[in-house]
Amino acid sequence: MATSEATATRIMLAVNQSTIKGYPHASISSRGAFEWTLQKIVRSNTSGFKLLFLHVQVPDEDGFDDMDSIFASPEDFKSMRHRDRARGLHLLECFVTKCHQIGVASEAWIKKGDPKEVICHEVKRVQPDLLVVGSRGLGPFQRVFVGTVSEFCVKHAECPVVTIKRNPDEAPQDPVDD
Amino acid sequence: MATSEATATRIMLAVNQSTIKGYPHASISSRGAFEWTLQKIVRSNTSGFKLLFLHVQVPDEDGFDDMDSIFASPEDFKSMRHRDRARGLHLLECFVTKCHQIGVASEAWIKKGDPKEVICHEVKRVQPDLLVVGSRGLGPFQRVFVGTVSEFCVKHAECPVVTIKRNPDEAPQDPVDD
Repeated sequence: MATSEATATRIMLAVNQSTIKGYPHASISSRGAFEWTLQKIVRSNTSGFKLLFLHVQVPDEDGFDDMDSIFASPEDFKSMRHRDRARGLHLLECFVTKCHQIGVASEAWIKKGDPKEVICHEVKRVQPDLLVVGSRGLGPFQRVFVGTVSEFCVKHAECPVVTIKRNPDEAPQDPVDD
Repeated sequence: MATSEATATRIMLAVNQSTIKGYPHASISSRGAFEWTLQKIVRSNTSGFKLLFLHVQVPDEDGFDDMDSIFASPEDFKSMRHRDRARGLHLLECFVTKCHQIGVASEAWIKKGDPKEVICHEVKRVQPDLLVVGSRGLGPFQRVFVGTVSEFCVKHAECPVVTIKRNPDEAPQDPVDD
């Protein structure tokens, strides 16, 4: 039963940005999923695991953010796309830096699209041993309106999936925020 | 982020017997869940984890097995119950022995009742860091008839849950068997 340490266990983490305005960091549930993975699974065995960070950017989402923006030239659109890209890279940099500090191998990349579809597609392509997704832990009524990526992944991803619910103490004023 | 190794990560595994007649061993999906946990999570870090084996015995199930049995005295019922208990203990002994051999701490116990309800109840009581359940990986049509413990646990257990689907190569002739 003893396993060769040659091939690390590859854990994919789907991470996203906080939805809280003016808070350009990882979402509370992404951070929770990451910390759970390190504390409960990786532990001191840093050479036994490789973390794969996938950040899916939703093209539409920015449309909402920019409801009050005025686009007067093609340059305005270009700078918006540039800003999105910079934010995504910053998000992934934080996770990869932390892994580097503690000596866990990692990889990170950005995709655009519907998060639940893209995550399942990337699982199929990358074939991780485990997918970890954070969840806001919303009740059934809230879920109807916001949809949940984690539920879809549990059903459709072609690898074992674990959902890490956000700690209730950490929920923001509006529990739909994250 | 470095975690103290003082408290091991406690992983609960819900295990059951094979449904295949004359095969008095762990079910294929239970063995798959156990081996996945050792190979992908515990790895060489045997002191970092403690495995908690829960076996839920279904009181009704034996009724089916004993359709052709004749109960002529109270002793017959007693010996049937004795046999069930012996089978359950044998199942848990196999898992605990394997853990002992590779140096992973473990605990095991038997409960009676509806597996999905009992598993969630025991999660609440024992508060493991992770619950691992095997699944036959049945399609939607098969699921309607057999119900699935894993789906219920993913929704209702008060801890992170990971479902390990049975390897398609290992499925018995009737995929509802396990």
